[in-house]
Amino acid sequence: MSTMTSEDAFLACIDRHFCNEHPHMLRGRGDDCCELACPPRMTLSTDLFMQDTHFRLSYFSAADIGHKALAVNISDIAAAGARPLGFSMGLMVPEKQPGPHRLTGAFWDSLFDGMAQLARSHGMALTGGDLTRAGTFGLCVTVWGGPCGDAPFLRRTGCRPGDAVFLAGEAGLARTGLMALEAMGAEAAGEYPHAVAAHLRPVPLVRSGQRLAALQGARPQSRITLMDLSDGLARDLPRLFAAGEGTCGASLVLPDASLHPDVRRWAAEQGTDAAVHAFCGGEDYALLGTCAPEAVADVIEAAACDGVPVRVLGTVHGEPVVMLNGVPVTGGGFDHFSG
Amino acid sequence: MSTMTSEDAFLACIDRHFCNEHPHMLRGRGDDCCELACPPRMTLSTDLFMQDTHFRLSYFSAADIGHKALAVNISDIAAAGARPLGFSMGLMVPEKQPGPHRLTGAFWDSLFDGMAQLARSHGMALTGGDLTRAGTFGLCVTVWGGPCGDAPFLRRTGCRPGDAVFLAGEAGLARTGLMALEAMGAEAAGEYPHAVAAHLRPVPLVRSGQRLAALQGARPQSRITLMDLSDGLARDLPRLFAAGEGTCGASLVLPDASLHPDVRRWAAEQGTDAAVHAFCGGEDYALLGTCAPEAVADVIEAAACDGVPVRVLGTVHGEPVVMLNGVPVTGGGFDHFSG
Repeated sequence: MSTMTSEDAFLACIDRHFCNEHPHMLRGRGDDCCELACPPRMTLSTDLFMQDTHFRLSYFSAADIGHKALAVNISDIAAAGARPLGFSMGLMVPEKQPGPHRLTGAFWDSLFDGMAQLARSHGMALTGGDLTRAGTFGLCVTVWGGPCGDAPFLRRTGCRPGDAVFLAGEAGLARTGLMALEAMGAEAAGEYPHAVAAHLRPVPLVRSGQRLAALQGARPQSRITLMDLSDGLARDLPRLFAAGEGTCGASLVLPDASLHPDVRRWAAEQGTDAAVHAFCGGEDYALLGTCAPEAVADVIEAAACDGVPVRVLGTVHGEPVVMLNGVPVTGGGFDHFSG
Repeated sequence: MSTMTSEDAFLACIDRHFCNEHPHMLRGRGDDCCELACPPRMTLSTDLFMQDTHFRLSYFSAADIGHKALAVNISDIAAAGARPLGFSMGLMVPEKQPGPHRLTGAFWDSLFDGMAQLARSHGMALTGGDLTRAGTFGLCVTVWGGPCGDAPFLRRTGCRPGDAVFLAGEAGLARTGLMALEAMGAEAAGEYPHAVAAHLRPVPLVRSGQRLAALQGARPQSRITLMDLSDGLARDLPRLFAAGEGTCGASLVLPDASLHPDVRRWAAEQGTDAAVHAFCGGEDYALLGTCAPEAVADVIEAAACDGVPVRVLGTVHGEPVVMLNGVPVTGGGFDHFSG
């Protein structure tokens, strides 16, 4: 297939990959709006995924881009403990691609294939979107979901001193992959396969989120709060505590043994502290939350499915300070606009 | 206010302009997802609005950009005859702005103000979104709506030979404004005030759409189809007819007297045919539709509110040809990818 030369060629390619019928979609792509059959409550989130801000063409395959653009959005639905239903997409196609990376028809075919495989695995409908030439290559995806059975949606609000802080998924693994890819290019995949996969193909923890929501629905005294770990513990923990009741902070323990071997090996080779490296790492798309101390065992059992590691990181206290392995840690994390 | 230097400064600016409470929004901005109280059926649409593809900084004010980025989306909701409820936004902030246009804090303040005024006038909630540095300045807006009372959503499908083709709003006025702005810069506003306003500040015809949906609900035999006239009659009419029952085309009459004086004057000065110019014009965000011939008077009465001109352009026939003022017209319109 040659380079896409018309909007119709793009739309035909999208139609080949995404079914235009879905129980949630009363009217699909092809009109000004889609029409959706909606549950009484929905969750919705929008994320941008832009070249050279969020991905590089030098080591992301087209299918990786399609996968991750949707995965980072689904992760927000996972953090609500919701069931993904559908998504729409704004696709910015660069006028001409600088450098050696030509965006051919085969490229787009593969991008939509990577996205469609993930959408199918979650039973999601692509309801429509927009397509335009732009100065930058990127995608803007809006995803929504409904409740899973009669479970409530989870929120990040409401932790209090004494609650346990828990993490489902890895900390710092995706950052290790990013740093290895930036340092070594695509060859990093041979050296740090899990870290590279975590950066290129994050797996949103939808089932863990849903099982936590079900637990919270069955036992409200579990007091589960949950958020998507997208910008690193250093940046996301203060957000979780800022949404707590009164002043909150925590003393956390992140022993080296709890970190992924790829994280430990990278830190050792760089001569940096593995826990601090993991603490600052972004884009893990893990689930970070708190719960009542009595609920810890149930929370671990609920979140730990499909091989997802779940661990308690520490306890919420009433001081506005986060301690990591006995040392106060401040700031860090990732802000697109500062630093 | 100085240039925005942090994500928090952007979010604070957004919070100043957009209320974070709304009956439709059970949980607003500040979590991974918003939570929405949804009617059983919703319509949803996504549009990109990108610098130098959709707007120029040389003659769009910040408030114009904020207004139009949302207006073009609301127009899709209008075409469904729906009631706008909420929207989310992906905002791409350029690393550094080339040329003389510095995007200061005051710029963003004004952009959000222009957008917030339009959102308020339709009672819409901004539920969240994403914000990132990118190579290009642009916005991706997803908007959704619910039914207006017990009216059905309108669609573009189902016209048939014998139906009347109607237009609510102007044809070619926004294109005239675009061409005048491209030729004369911001000074065009003095020469072609209505045309320039139509390009910079399109008014989505929400009430016209809703009144047409109500009419269709009350009298299903009206057989109203409706779409958003965004890419020009030359390009959008074939889409309307492609969604018809069997082969459809039309013989249309667009007398000069039916065109806006700004359109006629521009065409005269350029030495072009005013009707052809209007026929090819995009971005009018008018409403284009068909109805049963018996329903024409009711359709005109329903769509003509708030001073919106409504006229019958002609009749659907069973040949795959569009005639304009007796001459077959083909192709034209606007495709970002070809030509």
